[in-house]
Amino acid sequence: MDRQVRCYDCGKTYRLEERQRCSCGEPLWFDADAETFEWPDDDRNWTAGMWRYEDALPVAPSSAVPTGSVPGTTPLVRAEGLDEYAGCRLSLKPEGQNPTGSFKDRGTAVGVEYGLRDGHDWIGTVSHGNMALSTSAYAAAAGLEAAVFVPADTPLERLELIARHGARIFRVEGDYGRLYAETLGLEAEVGRFVNSDTPLRVAGQKTVAYEILEQFQPSAPDAIVLPVSSGGQASGVWKALRELEAAGLLDADDVPRLYLVQAAACDPIATASREGRESVSAIEPGETIAVSIANADPPSGTRALTAARETGGAVVSVPDEATREAMDRLATAAGISVEPSSAVALAGVRELSRRGELDADEEVVTILTGSGYKERYDVDVESRTRTIDLEAVERELAAALE
Amino acid sequence: MDRQVRCYDCGKTYRLEERQRCSCGEPLWFDADAETFEWPDDDRNWTAGMWRYEDALPVAPSSAVPTGSVPGTTPLVRAEGLDEYAGCRLSLKPEGQNPTGSFKDRGTAVGVEYGLRDGHDWIGTVSHGNMALSTSAYAAAAGLEAAVFVPADTPLERLELIARHGARIFRVEGDYGRLYAETLGLEAEVGRFVNSDTPLRVAGQKTVAYEILEQFQPSAPDAIVLPVSSGGQASGVWKALRELEAAGLLDADDVPRLYLVQAAACDPIATASREGRESVSAIEPGETIAVSIANADPPSGTRALTAARETGGAVVSVPDEATREAMDRLATAAGISVEPSSAVALAGVRELSRRGELDADEEVVTILTGSGYKERYDVDVESRTRTIDLEAVERELAAALE
Ligand SMILES: [Zn+2]
Ligand SMILES: [Zn+2]
Repeated sequence: MDRQVRCYDCGKTYRLEERQRCSCGEPLWFDADAETFEWPDDDRNWTAGMWRYEDALPVAPSSAVPTGSVPGTTPLVRAEGLDEYAGCRLSLKPEGQNPTGSFKDRGTAVGVEYGLRDGHDWIGTVSHGNMALSTSAYAAAAGLEAAVFVPADTPLERLELIARHGARIFRVEGDYGRLYAETLGLEAEVGRFVNSDTPLRVAGQKTVAYEILEQFQPSAPDAIVLPVSSGGQASGVWKALRELEAAGLLDADDVPRLYLVQAAACDPIATASREGRESVSAIEPGETIAVSIANADPPSGTRALTAARETGGAVVSVPDEATREAMDRLATAAGISVEPSSAVALAGVRELSRRGELDADEEVVTILTGSGYKERYDVDVESRTRTIDLEAVERELAAALE
Repeated sequence: MDRQVRCYDCGKTYRLEERQRCSCGEPLWFDADAETFEWPDDDRNWTAGMWRYEDALPVAPSSAVPTGSVPGTTPLVRAEGLDEYAGCRLSLKPEGQNPTGSFKDRGTAVGVEYGLRDGHDWIGTVSHGNMALSTSAYAAAAGLEAAVFVPADTPLERLELIARHGARIFRVEGDYGRLYAETLGLEAEVGRFVNSDTPLRVAGQKTVAYEILEQFQPSAPDAIVLPVSSGGQASGVWKALRELEAAGLLDADDVPRLYLVQAAACDPIATASREGRESVSAIEPGETIAVSIANADPPSGTRALTAARETGGAVVSVPDEATREAMDRLATAAGISVEPSSAVALAGVRELSRRGELDADEEVVTILTGSGYKERYDVDVESRTRTIDLEAVERELAAALE
């Protein structure tokens, strides 16, 4: 396979080994050989997880080295109980069922395999949480050191999860956006830092859309809705749709619209969209419960904005109250506990339906990026709990459920 | 399908709807029609999760009702990096990747589908944690109420996860074993309480062994090692092996030996095994970090003991220090964070290798029952963490990794 990266904007191409951003300033992505791609046959079954789409990826899984566990093959859940709330026919893609509890494992797996192939003995990342945890776990499984750079104010609770896997953790005082950019320039080696919008990571992240589209066969969803932060995952989903269309596996008329959702307190991409601007610039962020997507200066923001526009979608933002409500609905009506940064996507679906962007009879897939079980949230335990004596079980149960 | 339950011990059969325990006192299990069972063909692919083995289950998934998400199709991970530690060729089955982070989802899914079919509006369970969480989530997804009975001293941290899904929680003062038995007699309806060794739950739990054996095709592992608590999961694994053998999909000579592991502080089944007794009786438990498997009076203890004996396996127990070490090895060498109650299984593998029960060239599958991300544990964060200034990133990184 010719490992080539391309700029979505100016079209310039480079060798994958060469660089991660275009000379025009925009991020690059890896080009699969779309002309030859077909849905996998039964020899490569679903237990291969995301490696089912190996033909569309820049690396293959190395059987010689244990890679911990396999991301992908998460379920596609038709959640009828939430249709009325969502205002459309809702399906959920619970990416929290990946090995470390988030969608990040897909990109990490590609980054780690590339690192192994290149003979690296350590890999790094700059992350608030999910990506750091994922990178630490996969590096450990592959026998690599992991160097994880987090903002200095990252809570201890998150660092504990990362530390379990033996990573070296650097709490960095200073600007997070600059830190992100500098780690990519630090070494001349592509693939040393697998940050959230690098070509290797975006290649892995795109597999979620390959999976959604294959699971939806023979039709395609009308829209895909996901939270957006750096823009790396949104880029991956868009790339997958373009590749599947180029491969003849998705009709031009059937390409799902991409809708991206941010938290209102930190919404640089939605702001640019609202103001009709061509590109995204940094904003001064406020506080939000959706900490995992609070990126005020998204490195692939303009690419994400373009993805939404070119597919006929949009970028919206939602207040924390809507996010809290969506989080509660997912847990109580679909049985899925997600982190606030995932719940914004369902809150976004509701908002989009209100605006008339989504119709009641449309098939909408919402990507739930991360599990909610990794952190504690305010939950009203008291009102749902009674302390009773063993002798009173029958009576109390009858009273509670009558 | 004839829904029949049978006593593994005296052979008596009943209708599934009739009762959950045999008149001889031993637990019953559901009989699949082994004569006609075959490995699923490609029409029922791996995205169906455990419903892939629908032909061996007492209920089918109801497409009319959203069931939240699909348990099963967890990876089978060959963990070469742990072979030396384990003393054998180790594969891991990380069941923490199920929707609510534990193996319990398999049995819950069967119980909830049965409850729906019978028109129940609530289901219940008696559980320390994982099973309560699983039951709450699946009931929520199916639109049923969940009544969860926990010991009065269950930590608030665990109750918060359960409460998210809207369950009614009863903290019960009194004997846990009696509570377990009484809830099964409380209503005459089979399937109302899906406790850990009931026929419906055991039917769901057996699918993990169907999956392991199918993923291991064309050969079979020499041994399967798992933690044991109530004995429900061990019973399910044994049942699967018996059914696959009866179906002609597993040669009598190839049936894996079952090894069951307990925490030394609470090991009634290992104690009975050590003392050469035919049946398991209650013990006075001590404290252990493996709280999820601390069952001092296991309702399917004798059946589990029989499973180990009849397959040529054994039941052993391990001290908490060994469990802590195994937990750390899994996180740092295989990239998998598990709860202590899962890590006992790897500690057990090591102990079994030391005793000569497992050979270095034997293929051993260890079932890792639950994710470690749902709770906080003591982790040495400080020694792995440095706070640095953005300007110092390059220098600090070089120093740390040289
Ligand atoms: Zn360019
Ligand atoms: Zn009997």
